[in-house]
Amino acid sequence: MWMYEKKLNYPINIKKKDPKMAKCIISQYGGPQGELMAAIRYLNQRYTMPDDYGKALLTDIGTEELGHVEMICTMLYQLLKGVTVEEIKACGLEDYYTEHGIDLFPQNASGVPVTSAYISSVGNPLADISEDMAAEEKARAVYENLIDLATDPDVIQPLLFLRQREIVHFNRFKELYEHYEKLGYKTHK
Amino acid sequence: MWMYEKKLNYPINIKKKDPKMAKCIISQYGGPQGELMAAIRYLNQRYTMPDDYGKALLTDIGTEELGHVEMICTMLYQLLKGVTVEEIKACGLEDYYTEHGIDLFPQNASGVPVTSAYISSVGNPLADISEDMAAEEKARAVYENLIDLATDPDVIQPLLFLRQREIVHFNRFKELYEHYEKLGYKTHK
Amino acid sequence: MWMYEKKLNYPINIKKKDPKMAKCIISQYGGPQGELMAAIRYLNQRYTMPDDYGKALLTDIGTEELGHVEMICTMLYQLLKGVTVEEIKACGLEDYYTEHGIDLFPQNASGVPVTSAYISSVGNPLADISEDMAAEEKARAVYENLIDLATDPDVIQPLLFLRQREIVHFNRFKELYEHYEKLGYKTHK
Amino acid sequence: MWMYEKKLNYPINIKKKDPKMAKCIISQYGGPQGELMAAIRYLNQRYTMPDDYGKALLTDIGTEELGHVEMICTMLYQLLKGVTVEEIKACGLEDYYTEHGIDLFPQNASGVPVTSAYISSVGNPLADISEDMAAEEKARAVYENLIDLATDPDVIQPLLFLRQREIVHFNRFKELYEHYEKLGYKTHK
Amino acid sequence: MWMYEKKLNYPINIKKKDPKMAKCIISQYGGPQGELMAAIRYLNQRYTMPDDYGKALLTDIGTEELGHVEMICTMLYQLLKGVTVEEIKACGLEDYYTEHGIDLFPQNASGVPVTSAYISSVGNPLADISEDMAAEEKARAVYENLIDLATDPDVIQPLLFLRQREIVHFNRFKELYEHYEKLGYKTHK
Amino acid sequence: MWMYEKKLNYPINIKKKDPKMAKCIISQYGGPQGELMAAIRYLNQRYTMPDDYGKALLTDIGTEELGHVEMICTMLYQLLKGVTVEEIKACGLEDYYTEHGIDLFPQNASGVPVTSAYISSVGNPLADISEDMAAEEKARAVYENLIDLATDPDVIQPLLFLRQREIVHFNRFKELYEHYEKLGYKTHK
Repeated sequence: MWMYEKKLNYPINIKKKDPKMAKCIISQYGGPQGELMAAIRYLNQRYTMPDDYGKALLTDIGTEELGHVEMICTMLYQLLKGVTVEEIKACGLEDYYTEHGIDLFPQNASGVPVTSAYISSVGNPLADISEDMAAEEKARAVYENLIDLATDPDVIQPLLFLRQREIVHFNRFKELYEHYEKLGYKTHK
Repeated sequence: MWMYEKKLNYPINIKKKDPKMAKCIISQYGGPQGELMAAIRYLNQRYTMPDDYGKALLTDIGTEELGHVEMICTMLYQLLKGVTVEEIKACGLEDYYTEHGIDLFPQNASGVPVTSAYISSVGNPLADISEDMAAEEKARAVYENLIDLATDPDVIQPLLFLRQREIVHFNRFKELYEHYEKLGYKTHK
Repeated sequence: MWMYEKKLNYPINIKKKDPKMAKCIISQYGGPQGELMAAIRYLNQRYTMPDDYGKALLTDIGTEELGHVEMICTMLYQLLKGVTVEEIKACGLEDYYTEHGIDLFPQNASGVPVTSAYISSVGNPLADISEDMAAEEKARAVYENLIDLATDPDVIQPLLFLRQREIVHFNRFKELYEHYEKLGYKTHK
Repeated sequence: MWMYEKKLNYPINIKKKDPKMAKCIISQYGGPQGELMAAIRYLNQRYTMPDDYGKALLTDIGTEELGHVEMICTMLYQLLKGVTVEEIKACGLEDYYTEHGIDLFPQNASGVPVTSAYISSVGNPLADISEDMAAEEKARAVYENLIDLATDPDVIQPLLFLRQREIVHFNRFKELYEHYEKLGYKTHK
Repeated sequence: MWMYEKKLNYPINIKKKDPKMAKCIISQYGGPQGELMAAIRYLNQRYTMPDDYGKALLTDIGTEELGHVEMICTMLYQLLKGVTVEEIKACGLEDYYTEHGIDLFPQNASGVPVTSAYISSVGNPLADISEDMAAEEKARAVYENLIDLATDPDVIQPLLFLRQREIVHFNRFKELYEHYEKLGYKTHK
Repeated sequence: MWMYEKKLNYPINIKKKDPKMAKCIISQYGGPQGELMAAIRYLNQRYTMPDDYGKALLTDIGTEELGHVEMICTMLYQLLKGVTVEEIKACGLEDYYTEHGIDLFPQNASGVPVTSAYISSVGNPLADISEDMAAEEKARAVYENLIDLATDPDVIQPLLFLRQREIVHFNRFKELYEHYEKLGYKTHK
């Protein structure tokens, strides 16, 4: 089980509304490389990892990703807070407003609902972890795309932090991959 | 952020493998009334609740639902642990085994990947909470269907516990609904 | 079976083309809170309602919602009629035009095809009706979002009418819910 | 708008429960060639047909298809009525029971929710009607598959009736296609 | 198996970047009437065609459609090549850039991932080929919509070529349809 | 463009009908780790690879995967050829027969239509190739699951061949990954 602590992994303090930027960042909430499916992917895979090292690492990183979901949601909330109908119209987000007002919603940047079709578990620890490594690389790339688009330092700073965490996770998954490779999980029984 | 504590909300100790029952219970993991989208629904809606009462209640119940996801996953893991290919064939679950071996995967009982199309946030607290109340009622009904199907008391006990929690949550959401009703959120500004 | 009568539930007479507004209103056609899945939800659930009161109410409201689908479609048709390629480009709807010209299509406001993942039937009348109540609340909220976005009284009037019907339906479903509650459908057999 | 008349297009009187057959027939409710998306397809396309002949024909057939949805639903209801948990288990439909009890649900035979991805409207009457003709051919073929699977004459009779209607509709659409072909809708303006 | 030859079915040489036009044309890559699902549809259906004429025709046209996929991809690549973040912002494609940078991706014009829900195979050659005929008509109509939107002759020329191929394919499928009609595939065995 | 050669990458000669095994193997056609989306993934990503080495490798492997799709389809065709309605019923595949007769269809083992939600392209060659490496690992694992389930040597031999190709592709993608790593694509510009 999890305990909630009212504290973010990294401080978010965005002072300028920017619904258009929110519509992009939402991809790291409910998009294919987003934090939500990352958390679910790791917490899902951990059960069948063959040893405690794998189980613990996936639990750790999965739990950290839940915190990253919260960071992204906080960014979305601050970017949308107090946005008026006129501002919505000015940046062409009437479609989002129609269905969600300025509530949050886990979708990708073009409005596709999040789906576990984005993640896998195939019954082999090496294959599962290779997906995790790829997921971290791809999430890193999306953060770089977002940083390209962003102009407000209050937005860029947390994106840089999150990008950095993807690199750390990638390295930890790589170590786990090599560990299971040594244990022989590449050879079909 | 969340802190993981290696402890279940309610003890799970299933001693008899039963992949067929796992295939049903998986619905409360990644199905339309499942615990995973319930957790995401509440944690998603909390940001735009108009006061601290709403924000706190949705954070609380959303966090508890994360623990319920873990309970369901533990049930699935125990029901599938050590299942052989022969047992898979005997109960007709070759489709699942092909794609997941005996790993877990967040899908509904017939194999549809979980999607946020199951949940909503529409920019009005009363409407959002009415969905939450309905979600609890519907999850209760699915637990009843599962209890109808189950025969092993080790499976039935945690299902009864989870069913009971849905009723508790329903009542807490009903109170929140009445609170916002009094505050006038039903009248369009 | 149904008999078609060439008459709308409420007169629609929009004189000003507005493809952008059409793209928003389309959500109440094929979006998650739209009239189409509402009609299907009620007409689907009616079969297993435990008595004639429930069966009749769901048939009635489901049939009325078919008429609301027609109202929404008529609005879309009038908002799109005679729109030129230049007007399409001016409001950024090239994506819609590419795939549909100025035909109608049952999708949400960002282009996701309508799906019955938006609706449920779970084998328990109280749970089913609680979803119906929530659906009416959420549809009401979306109509309010649309009214916020609309400026043409010819558009606003039918939206106000439709919003009002959601409230009426909510109350009728609430009565049905209380009826089945008294009959004991909350207790698991 | 539509008026409901408590009468079926063709009498349904199935006396033998058969949940397995229900699970197949459900495809003609919410599957890719099902009556529900057929009705929606025609009622959706009618708005932009270039003359009254096309508008009226699509309204007529679309309305008849709503009645066919009702026929299919009645078949499902009668095939599932009074089915026990033991009977569900005996024919391997636990997945459906978990999520729907013995309620109906618009899905295909393997449990995929119905979606308007199955239908099209592309801004050209000939192209739209060519889809309608194909839809009737494909629905006919699915009815033939169902008749192959069915053994109970009470089930086969209404399937034969519905198959026959597809052929009638195909011919009426073919006439409409030829009408618009003569009017020159094949040449790009 | 297939052999790749580094040559396009028709020359593509677009000199002017135009990400907005790319976002439309992407529909003929991964949209409902796109070349990708067309290729898959024909190559999928060919196995169960009742004679060599049908098998060969579907293999031929399916293989040609693979080349059309490559033409569309080349157009997308040239329209997007060298596009800057400022140009992305100027035409409102931040959502696409967030998730794909300026890589290609098989989706429809509003960002929905491509799905085989767009295609069918129903166990009857006439029904399958009627879908193929409709597919060609609908793809033709979408090319006409794209030609309406396009202004650059370097874009229009290949679109005209592709539109023309749809007409040729339609006629070849019509001949095949008539061939199987004569062989009696319309009568249910 | 591609040229079709009537020859398989590896001989397939299955003499024993086995619809149940077909239903599993179909996952490597239209499932998440299937050959179809693998081919599309590589052929899609190749356009924006930064040099000819990457473009050529992705074109090569993508083209080979098209041949693997054909191998899998041939297996499905031979496993289903001549299957009777009685045999369909005996192994519980009525759902598939209802919608497809014994035609092929690109879906996963539980009937979900194939979707490009399974694949990615994120605008960074290292991230894209990390996905490709993971895809090969995961496909290998699914082939191992299928080999576990298979008993007929005529089925096992081609599965072993395909599994082996995944390992070869993984190694070639790993070399490409290291090549781009050296060129500095991990550092955000």
